[in-house]
Amino acid sequence: MPTEERIPETAPATEAARTKTRIAVLPQLDDLTREAVRNAGGSTVRLEEAQALVWNTSNMDGFPAELPDAVRWVQLPSAGVEKWVDAGVIDEKRQWTSAAGAYALPVAEHAIMLLLAGIRQFPNMVGATIWKKEQLWSQVGTLAGSTVAIIGCGSIGRALIPMLNAMGASVVAVNRSGRVVDGADRTIAADDAASVWPQADHFIIAAPATDATRHLVGAEQFADMRPHSWVVNVARGGLIDDDALLEALEAGQLAGAALDVTDPEPLPDGHPFWEHPRVIITPHVANPLAALKENLRLRVAENLSRFADNEPLLGAVDIQRGY
Amino acid sequence: MPTEERIPETAPATEAARTKTRIAVLPQLDDLTREAVRNAGGSTVRLEEAQALVWNTSNMDGFPAELPDAVRWVQLPSAGVEKWVDAGVIDEKRQWTSAAGAYALPVAEHAIMLLLAGIRQFPNMVGATIWKKEQLWSQVGTLAGSTVAIIGCGSIGRALIPMLNAMGASVVAVNRSGRVVDGADRTIAADDAASVWPQADHFIIAAPATDATRHLVGAEQFADMRPHSWVVNVARGGLIDDDALLEALEAGQLAGAALDVTDPEPLPDGHPFWEHPRVIITPHVANPLAALKENLRLRVAENLSRFADNEPLLGAVDIQRGY
Repeated sequence: MPTEERIPETAPATEAARTKTRIAVLPQLDDLTREAVRNAGGSTVRLEEAQALVWNTSNMDGFPAELPDAVRWVQLPSAGVEKWVDAGVIDEKRQWTSAAGAYALPVAEHAIMLLLAGIRQFPNMVGATIWKKEQLWSQVGTLAGSTVAIIGCGSIGRALIPMLNAMGASVVAVNRSGRVVDGADRTIAADDAASVWPQADHFIIAAPATDATRHLVGAEQFADMRPHSWVVNVARGGLIDDDALLEALEAGQLAGAALDVTDPEPLPDGHPFWEHPRVIITPHVANPLAALKENLRLRVAENLSRFADNEPLLGAVDIQRGY
Repeated sequence: MPTEERIPETAPATEAARTKTRIAVLPQLDDLTREAVRNAGGSTVRLEEAQALVWNTSNMDGFPAELPDAVRWVQLPSAGVEKWVDAGVIDEKRQWTSAAGAYALPVAEHAIMLLLAGIRQFPNMVGATIWKKEQLWSQVGTLAGSTVAIIGCGSIGRALIPMLNAMGASVVAVNRSGRVVDGADRTIAADDAASVWPQADHFIIAAPATDATRHLVGAEQFADMRPHSWVVNVARGGLIDDDALLEALEAGQLAGAALDVTDPEPLPDGHPFWEHPRVIITPHVANPLAALKENLRLRVAENLSRFADNEPLLGAVDIQRGY
C-alpha cells in the first residue's frame, strides 16, 4: 500500500499510465462499459489499437479467431469460463480474467432463497388458492439448526457463510486446496469430499465446471444423503448427474433439488424436472441482468486500474485448472 | 450472576426450590413438556395443586375461567398474545409470559424467504414448465444494495439484522422506544414512523398486534412506498389494511406483498389475495410445528428455572402495553 509520502510521486505516473490504457470493448461498446473505462482513466479504441479487450456479453459468437499480440489482457463477462476454455479461445499469450467473485452476493442470495424454499415447502404454497396449514405446517422445516455443505467454496461460498451463520446453520466448506475457510465450521479438501455427503443436511453446489467436477454429484453421493436433504445448484448444470438425481428422488434418498442451472440450458420442454414435485427450477437468473451489468462495470474499472498499475488482476483464469 | 463461591451455597437451596415447583400443563400434558418440566427440576401436578400453569396449545378453548390464587405464573404458548388480552384472560393477579422471542430465528428465516421470493420474481418461476429466462431475467431484483425497514424491531427483527446485513442490505429499525438497535443502520421510534415509508425499499412487519398497531400499514403508508417495494408480514394480519393494500397494488404504489399472516385466518376461499399475481400467501407457517414444540420446550424449561430462582421471566406480558 502506498504511504502518504509516496502518493505525490507515484500518482502522476499512474494517472499517465491509465490515460494511456487503450481498451477495446466488443462485440458492442455499451454506455456502462464506456463510462467504467473512462472513469478508471482508460480510453476505448478499436481492437487493432488496443492493449486490452473487454468482451461484454456471455455469447461467444464473433469472438476474434486471433487477437493482436498487443492485447495483453482479456476480460470475460462470466464468472464461469468453461465454454471459453472448451472452445480453445483462452491462450497463454496474454492474461485472461473472468468475472469470478464479482457476482458472489446476488448468486449467494438466490441460493439461500432456493434452499429455504425447498426446506420450507414453499412451492406447495405458491399458487395455492386455499389455506393449507393443516397439510403443510408439520412438513415445514427450518434452516436453523441444520448443517449446510458448500461444495466448491470460492467467492459465492464465502458470501454464503455469514448468511447461513446468521440463520443458525453450521457450514462445512469443501474446496480444492482444503485451506481453512473463514467462518466455516469445517473445511474439507475436494480430494476428501466423499466424507461430506453423510455429514451435512443440505448441499449448495458452487464449484466451477471443469473436467474434474463433471457429475460431481451422482448416484454415490445421493446414496449418502438423508431423506430430508435439499441440493441447491447455482454453479453449472453439468456438476449434477441428472439421471442419478431422478433415481435418487424416486428412491427417497433426498428431499429435493433446487436448480438455477441445468444441463443443457435452456432446459428442454418436457424434461422430467419441469413437472417433478420435488424439483425447483429457476431459469439461470441467480445473477440478475441489472446486477450483472453493474458488477461487471465495477470489475472492469477495478481491473483496468490494476492493469495500469501492473497489479494482479481479479479473476485471473488458470488455463491448467480450467477456471 | 452467581460467583464461583456462591454456587455451593445456593445450589442446594435452588435444587430444593425447583423440586418443589409444581406445574400444571393444560389442556393436555404432552411428553415434551413433561420432560421439560422434569429436566428443569419441576413436577407436573393438577391445577388445584399448582404454583404455575403452562398452556401448551394456541387454542384458548377450555382455558379456566378462574385460576387458583396459588398459581403465580402462567406460560402461554404463542409469541403474540393479543387474543388472550382481548378475551380478558390475562389478569394482574399473577405473572403472565408469552413465548415472544422463542421463535425469532425460524420466523426471521421465513421472512427472508418471502422477501427474496418477492424481489426475485420466484412465484413466476415455480410451477413454470418452460424456460422463461428471456421474460424474467431483467425483472429479477436483488436484496443486496437495498434498504429494508423492520417495522416492530423486537426479537424477530434482531434475528433478521445479521441475515440482512450478510446479504448486503441496509436496515432501518422501527421500535416503540426508539432505543438504538444493535446492527441497524438507523433506529426510528414508532411515534416517528411516518418518516420510514419513503426511505426504505422493502418492509418487514414484525410488530405485536395491539390497538395501537391495527392497520399500521394503510393507504397513507402505501402511498409513500416505491413501485419496486415489497412488504412482508410475519406478525399478524391485522397490522395491514387489506383493502388499502389491494388499492395500492392496483395503483402501482408497491411491487407486492408476501403474507404469512392474514386477517382473518384462515384466509377465506375466494379472497382476492389468493389469485392476485403480486400477493404471496403462506398459511401461517413461519414458525413450523416442530420448531414451535422444541422452542416452547426450551422456553418452559428456562422460565421454570427462573421462576424457581425468583429471577425475571422471559416474555413477561405487560397488560398495559398489550404484549
